[in-house]
Amino acid sequence: MINLDNASTTKPYNEVVNEIALSLTEDYLNMGAKYSQAKIIEKKTNLIRTNFLKAINAKDGDIIFCPSATSANNLILRSINIKNGGRILISEGEHSSVYETSKELIRQGAKLDYIPLTKNGQVDIEKFKTMLSEDVCFVSTILVSNETGAINNLKEIVKIAKQINPKCLVHTDAVQALGKIKIDAQDLGVDFITISAHKIYGPKGIGALYAKNIEFLKPLIFGGGQEYNLVSGTENFAYISGFNTALKLTTLKQEENYKIVKSYKEEFLSALNAYKVNYIINSPEENCSPYILNLSFKNVRGEVLLHALSQMDILIANGSACSSKKRGNRVLEAMGKNKDEIDGAVRISFSPYEKYDFNYIASCFYNVIEQIKY
Amino acid sequence: MINLDNASTTKPYNEVVNEIALSLTEDYLNMGAKYSQAKIIEKKTNLIRTNFLKAINAKDGDIIFCPSATSANNLILRSINIKNGGRILISEGEHSSVYETSKELIRQGAKLDYIPLTKNGQVDIEKFKTMLSEDVCFVSTILVSNETGAINNLKEIVKIAKQINPKCLVHTDAVQALGKIKIDAQDLGVDFITISAHKIYGPKGIGALYAKNIEFLKPLIFGGGQEYNLVSGTENFAYISGFNTALKLTTLKQEENYKIVKSYKEEFLSALNAYKVNYIINSPEENCSPYILNLSFKNVRGEVLLHALSQMDILIANGSACSSKKRGNRVLEAMGKNKDEIDGAVRISFSPYEKYDFNYIASCFYNVIEQIKY
Repeated sequence: MINLDNASTTKPYNEVVNEIALSLTEDYLNMGAKYSQAKIIEKKTNLIRTNFLKAINAKDGDIIFCPSATSANNLILRSINIKNGGRILISEGEHSSVYETSKELIRQGAKLDYIPLTKNGQVDIEKFKTMLSEDVCFVSTILVSNETGAINNLKEIVKIAKQINPKCLVHTDAVQALGKIKIDAQDLGVDFITISAHKIYGPKGIGALYAKNIEFLKPLIFGGGQEYNLVSGTENFAYISGFNTALKLTTLKQEENYKIVKSYKEEFLSALNAYKVNYIINSPEENCSPYILNLSFKNVRGEVLLHALSQMDILIANGSACSSKKRGNRVLEAMGKNKDEIDGAVRISFSPYEKYDFNYIASCFYNVIEQIKY
Repeated sequence: MINLDNASTTKPYNEVVNEIALSLTEDYLNMGAKYSQAKIIEKKTNLIRTNFLKAINAKDGDIIFCPSATSANNLILRSINIKNGGRILISEGEHSSVYETSKELIRQGAKLDYIPLTKNGQVDIEKFKTMLSEDVCFVSTILVSNETGAINNLKEIVKIAKQINPKCLVHTDAVQALGKIKIDAQDLGVDFITISAHKIYGPKGIGALYAKNIEFLKPLIFGGGQEYNLVSGTENFAYISGFNTALKLTTLKQEENYKIVKSYKEEFLSALNAYKVNYIINSPEENCSPYILNLSFKNVRGEVLLHALSQMDILIANGSACSSKKRGNRVLEAMGKNKDEIDGAVRISFSPYEKYDFNYIASCFYNVIEQIKY
């Protein structure tokens, strides 16, 4: 199998699998129990929270573990007090977990506007400036686009937002950034950061929200009061521990992996060129994560290409897997792509842990495209 | 370690741990992806849903996997359209995940009343009858009390509720029933059932809601539309698969385990009697799960007993671990227990997979109580 869909999910590290198996067996007590045998697990969890804060260079604040990054995004967005009448700005480049939750906020009466993207897929900072006013209380923009790899200038976005309203809070979904590019909470000045385990060779079923000030948050799930009374439900220590292992390993390898993936992207494009395959690149040339490459092939439907390649055991995505049920592509539309470009778009996403034969892969693309092009 | 706190959580079966490790490694693709390699995992998940329906003898309906039973209880309760003006009845014997969510419904304006318990800890059916009217649209009662083991006559509750309003929907939190006593969805006539993996030797971090009619439900978490668009977030197949293994094994052993645990309860009480320990039983004599035994010791504070026993590596609970942060005990209060009885109460919960030396355990209880009694 040739996996070029690593932005969708990743294969857990062996060390992660072993850590989860060990925790399931050894640290199975309910950390909410009152006896010291269980409190040991709570202490381990709190140490892990500290590791996470360090990993994103956060000085203050808390880490709230959630059953997914989607839950974390729901937690932060649904904590906004929409009855205060403040305006909310959300970028058009968001993952469905932010986008669909923002739609729910609108249904509940929120004053919410979407910040346009440039043709490169980044938040249009000039237009953002014109949308800002003192009553903008909350801004959310993705750090690295899950569709194109476009990196937003979050530091600038935070700075501008807080210049207009110092009390404005800024959130970022950094799921495609964690373990891949540097996340420096202090330098960015951001208030909330969403991260996920399964994009960094950890398990599916755990994410986290970093909150500089936890007081802002309101319970998402009611019950026993776990996770600072924000996400009730018995804590999943095995996955918290597996997430920790994944973060440790991926952070350790971050720079090395970045170089590997950058060369993968270049090699792949060179190989396509060698086969004279006709494509345009939807990912931006600058400020782009090399982990994600969005291409449109001429006279080809992305979905047909995906299925044809999958029969040769080559995995790619069109749209994001997380919103496979939705037609079209909201983010590419926001970038001003035309219908043919959107229909022809696929997402290629690399793993530094895979060895790719790009000459073979490009030959497969070439052969398939010759067969399916209209 | 002598674990007498198995109602709080259980140690996963080795087979469950192995299944999770295997799934993390082999079936790691995102089942939401469009290629057939991922769709295999979706098919496996749907087969597991069918297994679950069979396990609770449900003819129609769906299984929605949730990150916890707490999430499942939130999903069902927060799906109630409180603007319709219908009345909601919730028993006073509910787990915190139902109870705290019901409090949120009240804050949102729901017409919600609590059904009293008898002194045995069961829903008071006579009082329930007097509370019913045609505008009662929703009833929720726990199947087996997590505090006392009291089993509610759910079949009768469903029958009575639907006699008054055939459209009234009934939900049960069956977390302490699954794998321990028979759950027959058709016979009970219930509309929604909540279950959990980690009480039946599965992992923490996964539960499920059975829904006879999924149309009633509203999204709890917004995003990619997973789990019938009710609980968004990339599916945690490893735990779904681990839950399946746990359910299979525990169902297979259900009758045998019941007998073992019933004899454990009897042996434990006999051993306490042999030491002339002074206690009263808060669990009912009839219609009670032998897995849970709630006792109050005279002139002893439950919490002090818990900590003293934990130093001898004997684990018990006072209150439920899931609501350890709350003082007092809401359920025992609803049963009319007095303050001393509540302060002196502890919960003993057995596992059929543990070998207990009850003579030794009773001697520890005796010695500790002699030291700490006031």
